[in-house]
Amino acid sequence: MKKVRIGLIGTGYIGRCHAIAYAQASTVFKLKGEIVREMLAEVTPELARSKADEFGFSRATGDWRELVSDPNIDVVDICAPNFLHKEMALEAIRHGKHVYSEKPLALSVADAEEMTRAAQQAGVKTLVGFNYMKNPTSQLAREIIARGEIGEVVHFYGTHNEDYLANPQTPLDWHCQKALAGLGALGDLAAHIVNMAHYLVGDIEEVSGDMLTVIRQRPDPKDATRLLPVENEDQASALLRFAQGAHGVVETSRIACGSKMGLTYVVTGTKGALRYTQERMAELELYLHDDPAGRQGFKTILTGPAHPDYAAFCISAGHGIGFNDQKTVEIRDLINGIAAGDRMWPDFAEGLQVSKVLEAIAVSAVERRWIKV
Amino acid sequence: MKKVRIGLIGTGYIGRCHAIAYAQASTVFKLKGEIVREMLAEVTPELARSKADEFGFSRATGDWRELVSDPNIDVVDICAPNFLHKEMALEAIRHGKHVYSEKPLALSVADAEEMTRAAQQAGVKTLVGFNYMKNPTSQLAREIIARGEIGEVVHFYGTHNEDYLANPQTPLDWHCQKALAGLGALGDLAAHIVNMAHYLVGDIEEVSGDMLTVIRQRPDPKDATRLLPVENEDQASALLRFAQGAHGVVETSRIACGSKMGLTYVVTGTKGALRYTQERMAELELYLHDDPAGRQGFKTILTGPAHPDYAAFCISAGHGIGFNDQKTVEIRDLINGIAAGDRMWPDFAEGLQVSKVLEAIAVSAVERRWIKV
Amino acid sequence: MKKVRIGLIGTGYIGRCHAIAYAQASTVFKLKGEIVREMLAEVTPELARSKADEFGFSRATGDWRELVSDPNIDVVDICAPNFLHKEMALEAIRHGKHVYSEKPLALSVADAEEMTRAAQQAGVKTLVGFNYMKNPTSQLAREIIARGEIGEVVHFYGTHNEDYLANPQTPLDWHCQKALAGLGALGDLAAHIVNMAHYLVGDIEEVSGDMLTVIRQRPDPKDATRLLPVENEDQASALLRFAQGAHGVVETSRIACGSKMGLTYVVTGTKGALRYTQERMAELELYLHDDPAGRQGFKTILTGPAHPDYAAFCISAGHGIGFNDQKTVEIRDLINGIAAGDRMWPDFAEGLQVSKVLEAIAVSAVERRWIKV
Amino acid sequence: MKKVRIGLIGTGYIGRCHAIAYAQASTVFKLKGEIVREMLAEVTPELARSKADEFGFSRATGDWRELVSDPNIDVVDICAPNFLHKEMALEAIRHGKHVYSEKPLALSVADAEEMTRAAQQAGVKTLVGFNYMKNPTSQLAREIIARGEIGEVVHFYGTHNEDYLANPQTPLDWHCQKALAGLGALGDLAAHIVNMAHYLVGDIEEVSGDMLTVIRQRPDPKDATRLLPVENEDQASALLRFAQGAHGVVETSRIACGSKMGLTYVVTGTKGALRYTQERMAELELYLHDDPAGRQGFKTILTGPAHPDYAAFCISAGHGIGFNDQKTVEIRDLINGIAAGDRMWPDFAEGLQVSKVLEAIAVSAVERRWIKV
Repeated sequence: MKKVRIGLIGTGYIGRCHAIAYAQASTVFKLKGEIVREMLAEVTPELARSKADEFGFSRATGDWRELVSDPNIDVVDICAPNFLHKEMALEAIRHGKHVYSEKPLALSVADAEEMTRAAQQAGVKTLVGFNYMKNPTSQLAREIIARGEIGEVVHFYGTHNEDYLANPQTPLDWHCQKALAGLGALGDLAAHIVNMAHYLVGDIEEVSGDMLTVIRQRPDPKDATRLLPVENEDQASALLRFAQGAHGVVETSRIACGSKMGLTYVVTGTKGALRYTQERMAELELYLHDDPAGRQGFKTILTGPAHPDYAAFCISAGHGIGFNDQKTVEIRDLINGIAAGDRMWPDFAEGLQVSKVLEAIAVSAVERRWIKV
Repeated sequence: MKKVRIGLIGTGYIGRCHAIAYAQASTVFKLKGEIVREMLAEVTPELARSKADEFGFSRATGDWRELVSDPNIDVVDICAPNFLHKEMALEAIRHGKHVYSEKPLALSVADAEEMTRAAQQAGVKTLVGFNYMKNPTSQLAREIIARGEIGEVVHFYGTHNEDYLANPQTPLDWHCQKALAGLGALGDLAAHIVNMAHYLVGDIEEVSGDMLTVIRQRPDPKDATRLLPVENEDQASALLRFAQGAHGVVETSRIACGSKMGLTYVVTGTKGALRYTQERMAELELYLHDDPAGRQGFKTILTGPAHPDYAAFCISAGHGIGFNDQKTVEIRDLINGIAAGDRMWPDFAEGLQVSKVLEAIAVSAVERRWIKV
Repeated sequence: MKKVRIGLIGTGYIGRCHAIAYAQASTVFKLKGEIVREMLAEVTPELARSKADEFGFSRATGDWRELVSDPNIDVVDICAPNFLHKEMALEAIRHGKHVYSEKPLALSVADAEEMTRAAQQAGVKTLVGFNYMKNPTSQLAREIIARGEIGEVVHFYGTHNEDYLANPQTPLDWHCQKALAGLGALGDLAAHIVNMAHYLVGDIEEVSGDMLTVIRQRPDPKDATRLLPVENEDQASALLRFAQGAHGVVETSRIACGSKMGLTYVVTGTKGALRYTQERMAELELYLHDDPAGRQGFKTILTGPAHPDYAAFCISAGHGIGFNDQKTVEIRDLINGIAAGDRMWPDFAEGLQVSKVLEAIAVSAVERRWIKV
Repeated sequence: MKKVRIGLIGTGYIGRCHAIAYAQASTVFKLKGEIVREMLAEVTPELARSKADEFGFSRATGDWRELVSDPNIDVVDICAPNFLHKEMALEAIRHGKHVYSEKPLALSVADAEEMTRAAQQAGVKTLVGFNYMKNPTSQLAREIIARGEIGEVVHFYGTHNEDYLANPQTPLDWHCQKALAGLGALGDLAAHIVNMAHYLVGDIEEVSGDMLTVIRQRPDPKDATRLLPVENEDQASALLRFAQGAHGVVETSRIACGSKMGLTYVVTGTKGALRYTQERMAELELYLHDDPAGRQGFKTILTGPAHPDYAAFCISAGHGIGFNDQKTVEIRDLINGIAAGDRMWPDFAEGLQVSKVLEAIAVSAVERRWIKV
């Protein structure tokens, strides 16, 4: 079986999730390639070595450039801070590596375009970590829509709300700095729900957005008596027009008290509707308007082996999969894509398309007018 | 005790709800005035007489003008079709009657302004039937916000979605005709959620709206082989800016498959959040961000005697009140307002303010730009 | 139309609910008889007069014996404390009155038997106030079961839990005294769920019960420094065997922290299942095992005009009815039963059957063995 | 770091879950020992080899006796069919191995006693796979109870219902045969909820049970025209008395239409209550009776890093863990127990105690009387 040699850059929050997923992927799925946890890069050689041991990687380096140029790496997996995505991806592509990058693809549309073009010109494969669409429940949603079970989609409402910055005493961090994060809640969170909208309904053509920075200053992490400016939006909303004709709304917030994993959507069609919240990631609610009178209602479908990719984890319905399992599905797509040429999506082109929508929302909010994506 | 003599015009859907509420109101509440079901008007004397008997009204007439000019009427209660609200209200005011009108107040802002001005000049009292805000649960929501329990409101998301026109085979009726209904889902449904937004968060200053007519033709009710044009919107969405600084979104649809009573809201503050859906009208979900770590979460408060107006119906929590009971609270406000000068709200001025917001959304949708209310 | 002249005894908690229902019943339903609120009895003439005015009754008396013997009364409606039900009902029957009694019918099976026999011998009609089965939602549950939509019932789990005595500092009241209340939670609460089990599944033949008095002493209401013994059970559970072969469990508690209106049931059949909680009285959850693979799940049916008796209150689905509306359905049955001979159920015979089940549970709990009902 | 060499017997449903958990455990947790996937046994050498490759085990054998006697095995992990647990465990113990067995520990109390005694005498460590109690949510439930947050527990209601045999056309398999499965739903499913009751409330002292075999015959898997008898119960219920004084009920079914993962519990205390269903495994509902009037209600706590063991999987709340992650927590306990002497629970003694309760229920159901455990 063809080996797929992974070079992982970054071992923070999401890097660790990747590592867990790499560890279990070949037991969960019959992969078309062999995962080789080849090399890991961190900011110092010591940390890299320690993390490599913890995550089961063979080699370690304190210099990511060494990793992206290593001849024994097939895929560069970028879990580094957002502002580094571009440079790392371009370097990896320059060395002919396939690239698996966390979202957001880049801090700007221009950067995302450069990266996408570079990958296309180099002929390397790409994948972006929009893992929520890999959940069997959302795959089921897409299947229901694609089969026309709810008719033609006429409306989409989606959110990605969290509350990690709800407390005004939380010190300023990179999320709030334009140079490091680009957009605020839009870039960090809404990227997921825009990708989901693409996945479920299709391209977004036009937006009218609004943004608000509620907590305009936060304590300096190094000196809590000093306040530093928050440079990007805490929350945003936008009206959407989809290419296929549906209208919609997308909202995002990083200060939405009570929303812990508030990726949600309601998709309304001419013959039915779907409702979903990631906080109940095993449940999809389906309404069919043609059900008999007196027997209409939203049905709560609990994900099980009858749905895409669930049975690989457990063959009984309702037993549940978790966040890292979504990543495992994603890594299945990565390995089968590299080793056997299976379709890898969402790729950089989709990451770019998401960036275009997010930037259009931000521009629209500033210019206070509709913007074509 | 002072008598409050009611003249009811219209006995359809909502007129019947008024009648039920009149029947029970004095048993439920210790009112400050005596309800006298004096006179009822319908389109024919026969129907009027029959409905008067059914609803417990003493006199009946086939001519509403007779009712509004009758010296023994104190309040004219308008449950007639929307396009008649203006004419009836103006005539009632001209005869010095207090006016209790169903929503929407009028088909246009100009009409609503004329009605509001006339009532102010005549010194009569007015009330508009935005009954959802009378539910103890939403009164509790307002109380929680007013006390600052969720901090300062930073975001409002509200909907009023139903699916009564989801089936494209449903024949055209007055809802779909501009001359009879004015706006579509905005006028018929969103009026409620805009009033609720006012009630919970305050004035809306600016909107960016979008509208869609999904089912552009419907069968002629007299000849199903012929299709007639639908003249107003099936669904609409708008970005909102509130005077107090919060942003928000309001959405409405009359073709939202699965939404039977989809008045919902999520109010997010700097210290907490509230979630509500009218389909679970006994439940308010409250989140407080200052709850101890590991014990945070949305708490489902079941309305009970500790909440406004509930105990009048039942002194045990969780036993539940219904739609007509909301109307009964509204009629309590009417009677106590007329008989004892208690505050009556939402009045015509609020009805006008709601119309302004709805019209701004519709204009914004056509002109594709932000509109100041 | 035939007049049905009501004599109401008692105006506390439930008497007030009856009064509200009488007030609205003839507006809600096209009744087959005319409700005449003829006479009201309370413990003093003054209270009786005041309540008669409040509830719209013509005459008042401080002596219930006067009411039950009055020639112008057709129905005696007993909302007095439980320990008086027997004496009042027997006297009313002796005077040839129809009797509408609140639950529990009596404090013991012997008393309930005497009352039932007396009514049968006198040929008067009877009705017991088990109002929860009048909710359109539970009527729908029965319809679904009767039509075989969930196959043959194989299991029933039901509760009636509340928490009105959860606080050990709540002073002793009549609920806790055998002479006034008979059983504790079983008599006060479980009566409803046992009636519901009869309604949905049929007769219960055998029980194995257990009871617990958790708070064994409570403050004397007249002297909080003194503790008085609690004489009956705070909570009880029982295994059930139904005549048609199903097994089941019923539970009850008056100290079930968090249960405000905890009448719930799960009915499992060979082809599906139903779930219900009275705290969401507009919702019935229906599961059908023959639904297609991948599309199975509990469907939340929101009560609407397609369901029994709902349309009388409102012709739109999901608008919701309340506790007093259930009583209004019950009073519709009363009036149509008396005026037109329609079936009145649950009658005294059912009240007796419920008592037999409850007493069997209590005896079983003491003797620690299965008891045939 | 000390190596813990695993010998896995069985690779069906649950064996596969173990394999996934072994694969990820050392990436998820900082373990105190090194997991060595040493050897795997299956019914043929070929299957064993193939599964060893799939699951990352070094060696393979077609003879489990070879595995349990291998000198390089520290722990024997028994995922074989239930009827083999006893023989395998005794052999493993005889060779001085630690034993990690799936539930139920054995087909009878006598067997479980023999196994428990053997392990104690041999001084080997044991663990039984009651994984549901390893979910952070249920660990949180225990923490809340242990801290007295809901007062003293007075009632426990628990279920483990599934519907895997709801269809009467499903052919007979080992679940329905006494010689292979012992008890029916009690052994296969209720074992989990009885363990959970022990974990949350403590020892059960006395039971009164009832059982029902609804589908008394099923098609022969080899000849669908022939029916074979079902030898054990499809569903069972029991009243419980706990050593600490609480009463309770436990129910189980393998034909409970609609229940896919119906492990649920409601724990009621003198000051609050907890509600849980495994189908929403990230949510615990907590009610505190001392909350202020008007602000009482069940709070839905979404599991997050503030709760036990969650942060090892993800450091953001609400992202969710899955069934296999519960197994991963269990394996953490196994490895830390073997390598560092940490407490391993539930051990064989607990498996035995569960068996005693289940057998008492079954005996009680047959003899129709209360049985002391």
